[in-house]
Amino acid sequence: MDELKEECGVFGIFGHSEAANLTYLGLYALQHRGQESAGIAAADGHHVTVARGMGYVADIFDDRTLSGLTGSSAIGHTRYSTAGESRLENAQPFLIDCVHGQMSICHNGNLVNAGEIRRDLVSKGSIFQTSSDTEVVLHLYARTQAPSQEQAAIESLAQVQGAYSILMMSPDRLIAARDPHGFRPLALGRLGEAWIACSETCALDLIGATYVRDVEPGEVVVITEAGLVSHKPFPPAARLHCVFEHVYFARPDSYVFGRSVNEARTAMGRQLAQESMVEADVIVPIPDSGVCAAIGFSEMSGIPMRMGLIRNHYVGRTFIQPQQSIRHFGVRVKLNPVRSILEGRRVVLIDDSIVRGTTSRKIVRMVKAAGAREVHMRISCPPTISPCFYGVDTPRRSELIAATHTLEEIRTYLDADSLAYLSLDGMLGAVTPERTHYCTSCYTGTYPIEFPKDQDAYLQLALKLDKPGLVLEEQV
Amino acid sequence: MDELKEECGVFGIFGHSEAANLTYLGLYALQHRGQESAGIAAADGHHVTVARGMGYVADIFDDRTLSGLTGSSAIGHTRYSTAGESRLENAQPFLIDCVHGQMSICHNGNLVNAGEIRRDLVSKGSIFQTSSDTEVVLHLYARTQAPSQEQAAIESLAQVQGAYSILMMSPDRLIAARDPHGFRPLALGRLGEAWIACSETCALDLIGATYVRDVEPGEVVVITEAGLVSHKPFPPAARLHCVFEHVYFARPDSYVFGRSVNEARTAMGRQLAQESMVEADVIVPIPDSGVCAAIGFSEMSGIPMRMGLIRNHYVGRTFIQPQQSIRHFGVRVKLNPVRSILEGRRVVLIDDSIVRGTTSRKIVRMVKAAGAREVHMRISCPPTISPCFYGVDTPRRSELIAATHTLEEIRTYLDADSLAYLSLDGMLGAVTPERTHYCTSCYTGTYPIEFPKDQDAYLQLALKLDKPGLVLEEQV
Amino acid sequence: MDELKEECGVFGIFGHSEAANLTYLGLYALQHRGQESAGIAAADGHHVTVARGMGYVADIFDDRTLSGLTGSSAIGHTRYSTAGESRLENAQPFLIDCVHGQMSICHNGNLVNAGEIRRDLVSKGSIFQTSSDTEVVLHLYARTQAPSQEQAAIESLAQVQGAYSILMMSPDRLIAARDPHGFRPLALGRLGEAWIACSETCALDLIGATYVRDVEPGEVVVITEAGLVSHKPFPPAARLHCVFEHVYFARPDSYVFGRSVNEARTAMGRQLAQESMVEADVIVPIPDSGVCAAIGFSEMSGIPMRMGLIRNHYVGRTFIQPQQSIRHFGVRVKLNPVRSILEGRRVVLIDDSIVRGTTSRKIVRMVKAAGAREVHMRISCPPTISPCFYGVDTPRRSELIAATHTLEEIRTYLDADSLAYLSLDGMLGAVTPERTHYCTSCYTGTYPIEFPKDQDAYLQLALKLDKPGLVLEEQV
Amino acid sequence: MDELKEECGVFGIFGHSEAANLTYLGLYALQHRGQESAGIAAADGHHVTVARGMGYVADIFDDRTLSGLTGSSAIGHTRYSTAGESRLENAQPFLIDCVHGQMSICHNGNLVNAGEIRRDLVSKGSIFQTSSDTEVVLHLYARTQAPSQEQAAIESLAQVQGAYSILMMSPDRLIAARDPHGFRPLALGRLGEAWIACSETCALDLIGATYVRDVEPGEVVVITEAGLVSHKPFPPAARLHCVFEHVYFARPDSYVFGRSVNEARTAMGRQLAQESMVEADVIVPIPDSGVCAAIGFSEMSGIPMRMGLIRNHYVGRTFIQPQQSIRHFGVRVKLNPVRSILEGRRVVLIDDSIVRGTTSRKIVRMVKAAGAREVHMRISCPPTISPCFYGVDTPRRSELIAATHTLEEIRTYLDADSLAYLSLDGMLGAVTPERTHYCTSCYTGTYPIEFPKDQDAYLQLALKLDKPGLVLEEQV
Repeated sequence: MDELKEECGVFGIFGHSEAANLTYLGLYALQHRGQESAGIAAADGHHVTVARGMGYVADIFDDRTLSGLTGSSAIGHTRYSTAGESRLENAQPFLIDCVHGQMSICHNGNLVNAGEIRRDLVSKGSIFQTSSDTEVVLHLYARTQAPSQEQAAIESLAQVQGAYSILMMSPDRLIAARDPHGFRPLALGRLGEAWIACSETCALDLIGATYVRDVEPGEVVVITEAGLVSHKPFPPAARLHCVFEHVYFARPDSYVFGRSVNEARTAMGRQLAQESMVEADVIVPIPDSGVCAAIGFSEMSGIPMRMGLIRNHYVGRTFIQPQQSIRHFGVRVKLNPVRSILEGRRVVLIDDSIVRGTTSRKIVRMVKAAGAREVHMRISCPPTISPCFYGVDTPRRSELIAATHTLEEIRTYLDADSLAYLSLDGMLGAVTPERTHYCTSCYTGTYPIEFPKDQDAYLQLALKLDKPGLVLEEQV
Repeated sequence: MDELKEECGVFGIFGHSEAANLTYLGLYALQHRGQESAGIAAADGHHVTVARGMGYVADIFDDRTLSGLTGSSAIGHTRYSTAGESRLENAQPFLIDCVHGQMSICHNGNLVNAGEIRRDLVSKGSIFQTSSDTEVVLHLYARTQAPSQEQAAIESLAQVQGAYSILMMSPDRLIAARDPHGFRPLALGRLGEAWIACSETCALDLIGATYVRDVEPGEVVVITEAGLVSHKPFPPAARLHCVFEHVYFARPDSYVFGRSVNEARTAMGRQLAQESMVEADVIVPIPDSGVCAAIGFSEMSGIPMRMGLIRNHYVGRTFIQPQQSIRHFGVRVKLNPVRSILEGRRVVLIDDSIVRGTTSRKIVRMVKAAGAREVHMRISCPPTISPCFYGVDTPRRSELIAATHTLEEIRTYLDADSLAYLSLDGMLGAVTPERTHYCTSCYTGTYPIEFPKDQDAYLQLALKLDKPGLVLEEQV
Repeated sequence: MDELKEECGVFGIFGHSEAANLTYLGLYALQHRGQESAGIAAADGHHVTVARGMGYVADIFDDRTLSGLTGSSAIGHTRYSTAGESRLENAQPFLIDCVHGQMSICHNGNLVNAGEIRRDLVSKGSIFQTSSDTEVVLHLYARTQAPSQEQAAIESLAQVQGAYSILMMSPDRLIAARDPHGFRPLALGRLGEAWIACSETCALDLIGATYVRDVEPGEVVVITEAGLVSHKPFPPAARLHCVFEHVYFARPDSYVFGRSVNEARTAMGRQLAQESMVEADVIVPIPDSGVCAAIGFSEMSGIPMRMGLIRNHYVGRTFIQPQQSIRHFGVRVKLNPVRSILEGRRVVLIDDSIVRGTTSRKIVRMVKAAGAREVHMRISCPPTISPCFYGVDTPRRSELIAATHTLEEIRTYLDADSLAYLSLDGMLGAVTPERTHYCTSCYTGTYPIEFPKDQDAYLQLALKLDKPGLVLEEQV
Repeated sequence: MDELKEECGVFGIFGHSEAANLTYLGLYALQHRGQESAGIAAADGHHVTVARGMGYVADIFDDRTLSGLTGSSAIGHTRYSTAGESRLENAQPFLIDCVHGQMSICHNGNLVNAGEIRRDLVSKGSIFQTSSDTEVVLHLYARTQAPSQEQAAIESLAQVQGAYSILMMSPDRLIAARDPHGFRPLALGRLGEAWIACSETCALDLIGATYVRDVEPGEVVVITEAGLVSHKPFPPAARLHCVFEHVYFARPDSYVFGRSVNEARTAMGRQLAQESMVEADVIVPIPDSGVCAAIGFSEMSGIPMRMGLIRNHYVGRTFIQPQQSIRHFGVRVKLNPVRSILEGRRVVLIDDSIVRGTTSRKIVRMVKAAGAREVHMRISCPPTISPCFYGVDTPRRSELIAATHTLEEIRTYLDADSLAYLSLDGMLGAVTPERTHYCTSCYTGTYPIEFPKDQDAYLQLALKLDKPGLVLEEQV
């Protein structure tokens, strides 16, 4: 399907006799943030053990694997990545031995200057065993002369730029850190005496833990037997939360950046109705991510909402496409139109984004084939016109339909009777009254972090922006 | 989870070069009707081949298996069964060789007099290799002296009583039959020149086929190269469609018994609001089956609906429960409450049924723990008080909470602030204006088909009804 | 590889608390008699349970499967079959329910009149769910009016003709039977109070049981809590032990038909040296089956034996052949020549049989390529000229090189410097001083059991003998 | 079983269009050198790809995996390791990116000073992701300032001490190196224009390649498109070939250190007969490794050899031991005695080594239980009294029965009627006329390479030698 994919989810716990089991449950709740691979590292005060595998959390871990992960602290990771690098070597947590002893690491985000640092480290004799930017942090960590693990972690994080919510665990401590801009979420919770740090609060809910607060942007939290200590070692920086967490990624039952995802989405739907009302008979969400916004749209517009597209819950990676004569089942296998709802009706379809437009086009056609008289497409965010460099897997600019086509051209391509996106201001208003503190690069094409000076990095960036030679002008 | 389980889904196609592949897709659309095992038989005019396995359709069949199922006709089956009989031997389609040649069979339903017939056949020297009632039909079929396969099929079906939607396929013909009461659904469709018979119309949608009509109660349809011929060999009988297909089993995008499932459920929700209105702030469906009724309830009541319980889509059979100290994750692993929706609110929970009550109780408690001020449980059907003998896997009467407790007792057990069920009349009105033609045994305890005279069958029946010695009085 | 394949191995035990576990071990010892599928049925006095799977014994059964096979008696089966019928449905033990209660069955052999009986049963209304001749016995069993299970077993076995060593187990008894000619082996053993019946004594050795005697040809042994009772219900018949068990099939550490396999093979080697001496430097067995005969040949000839061909022990079903340019690894993957033994030497290769000749040809060439100056092929049995109808999977007559070529033609094809087979009389002398009591059909083309009168059976037979129209003349 | 285990086998090829496929076959031939994990890296001139897995070669690689390993050069590895480190992270080849570009590595041997170097590298900021000594070589390689890959490889190898036969492959070259003492074997071969380097010549045989010569001790061979270049960068050192390769590890069809393994073993058997003749009726090898020596013993003694112990070829890792009452199947599952050979006889058992003695004891008892009148144990090498530090996985000294017991004590423990080992001089004479150039540490307890000065290394060493405090005196 033509979807944007989150890079990762992280979960860590310190001070619970079932640390690995609870991490397994936490990862399970964060499964939507990455289905390619998963891993858990556990520490018993003296030693860290790790188990990683390709696939879903529930397929990778069994009783035997979990019981081998002994100790009262653990960190875990679910991961998505682009196809070329889909190999076990890149599955996290990474676990190394170095001058500061054993250290494991889990990372959600994207380091903008990782390539630069890697080249420098390589020139100094470092060896890299993965293609992940996370390995860079471990090398920096191992090379500091810092007197303590937390100081070494802080010194290494001080050298990287970009988006990160990171967990590091040594045999006897858990470090949770978030970049100064706070791009990606990271929540703190408690379960009895145990501390938990995780990407979304839904993981706390599942294990019955209480949400305490977020790890703050630029904060480094160190948890040991002695308790939790907070460090703020980095210069203050503007908050730049990823608005796409609210638009699409996070689960609606989570709070991210202190805001209920469900409420943000419903507000987007209401705002969308205000901005782009249309005469219609029924509001139909594209499940599951369009449901909250559709509820908001329905309420504001007074047009009833119906589940006019049914999602098949048994779709998995193992699904086999029949060959030859029967084609293009891509969308139908996941979504089925409900003729009794659509037939003869003027339908407003609510979705959370359009990336390449190919899936949206198939859905519009399917809804029309089921008898809809009109199809009005409403998108609960602005047009996606530029790739993300802070942890979201986006296609190149030239593949983003809104980067290269006008609204009318997109509408024509989708075969919709009308098309409207939520305004940038409208979207921001739905997530925060201040209408600020959020990164909106993918909607604006302006990037808040300076791009790396390094020539190779420029080229890579240019490739993704499809504008070789013009990279510098992109910068803010 | 404490759910009622459908016994089976069937799909058959005649006259398409990709018969097995389309059957695979059809079973995939019918996966919700049985996740224990699945199988496909294919026929090429001369020979029938079969492949069966335990688990999900998408896990059982791969390219190699499907390409071995050659021929232009195929039948397939998804199955649920009780644990004791969960073995590959019972997976359908069955395939036999007999005096009428090769014959394969798929069955959705339950034969009330199968035990009686089996004992008779056994006494005459028959051997049984499964514990399925379907095998009885094959023995009857093989023992008839009928001059044709269709006549043999009709003669054998004439001897069985109960609920069946059955597909039989020999090397060169497909037979689709439905019991005279029409308990279980069976739709007829076309894809180009090919004919399709399947449990629900959602399977037709997926492969782009057109819904033609239902196989009628008591009809035996025979499809060969020469076309479709309809037989009505059985005496006419009262229509007794399973109302639970509309309440719970069928997918909302299907038409069953000529009625849109989505519309029936939404109407139930509206009726439920009319019957049992309550002051509240938010309507919350228990996903996914409660959504349609919740939409209806919300519209009729004017109280907004919110997705206050989020379902985890990654739940599978492989999920491993942590041990010891962390328990009772049963419901949380599947459903997570959305605190921002529930906190401080008066909540109406909409569900489609209460079986034992254990799951409902957990959900109510979870919703209250998430901050709900009041929880009002509304069920979109009448109290389930008696087991089904026509193809639905129900627990014994003594395990059905509504069979043994008053409404108030149930409400107290659930810890809900109020509890109401839809009335029998209200439910029937939602599915058909005539308010008739439906089997409602599970809500009334009166059974439309005479119970078998056989002593052993009595005992089995009595066991399920928990009333040894009183079985005869149950009969209508 | 170009080998003859045994059809099956059977193992049964009555009266031991670890019946299924011991059967698992017994099958493991009999794995060489069939690697396609295996199964175990266990009985606890009231009920029989079965588990079957495709592949090796050690792959099919794990702790969980074995612990589900409860009870103090069990029977098991390892199976080989031709490709077309390689499906789980045909894996044994079969388990049925019939008028005599539950009955499971395991069969080693081949019933000559199974097709005839099957057609008769089918015409009487029986249904067949497998393509195995063993299912015929179960139908006959279920149709007898006999007052007891053992009587029913005897009556059903009385109707079949051909080779069988059969185990039948009901909830409370184990029946072991052998056809009147005694084609296939069946040994009786004891482990404490428990009785065991199995194809070869090596299975007794593995579990520490004692070999008591063979089930005699035509004997039906019934074992219950009350002990072992022997029946001899069939008319006496000439003993016709399969000589190929000694030549090739059985493990050298087994006794079959009361004779040590190792001793028989060593005697064949000695006799072969006496009959076909040749000037040479080294005797090289084709491992593993040629080793015993090579030792005998070496001793009688005075020429030293060397392991000049090494067998790779890691060859399994999963081995993947590289494609395209690298071909014909077939033999090399299993056998590697030892240059230091072969180079410049006159080599006598000892093998136990030549079927199609293709593998032998590759081996001769490989040995010559490793530097052998001369290669003399010696076969420890007479030329195989006719297919087996009593339980050995042989190719059609036209595919047997010795059926269609002279000795000199075979030698030329193999590219050997000389070729000699053991004489029929010499082979018989090696297995028994009386030189009788053995079936030698595959070496003589004369068949001791009358072929079925049935027209269909004739045709099948003719197909295998490649002599349509001449079938009747084949008969003795 | 109580066996010594080889650490690894390596195979590399340069310049063949089916490089990965041939490496797969090569590893398959070397499977006996390590069954825990295996991996293949392939290079296409620009990029190196790797695939690794736990288990057997034939289970890890399928068509899809192999076809992903593109390019005309490849290296592969089979590995055994001790249980504690049995994890995928340690499976080779390792693949890194560093200042010299991509480099993959495979290693057979053991680096005596790896711990020392690792501690030094760690103190300089290196991170270690495995517990393998091979990772040390990669770090040294990445840290050299050498102008070329080969020079960097030479500089890094110059810093390690111990036993190694190593393959390194970058995108465009293959480097094969052997330590100056030549502890472990490494053969060079050709297949058409392609060059091959592998642990044993049996891998050359399988793919039809020609044995050219050994990589010489201290030689570094670099193969590129331009051809093969030999370097001899290290100071000359005494040859110290591992004699245990001839005694036990290598396949008998291989040449190692320029000597036929089969001939060496047969000569050991002959010498053993000369040294420790005994009156007996039959010589019985413990298969498969004792066969060659038994043939030699039989010829020299004139006592006939018989295969009195049969090995079960279906033993695999998946074999499940029955529980509770049936125990001690350890040996019987692998070996079965042939009563007809042993009963009433005076038996000479020939084995290649005794490690802990537990298995030998079980075999002697099993042979006696099968009726042997006398059992005389003859071992084709001297008593193993000290652990190996050069690539063989041996238990601690205290677990070696010959290190702590007299010959008579061992005989008593084994319950043998007599026991004799081959003399050190006799063994050396069997492998080379000079009776020198071989490492015999495990038989003498004197170690040719100075032990590391490092305190931690001392302790580890002391642990294995069970002599804390006395380590220095061990040194030569």
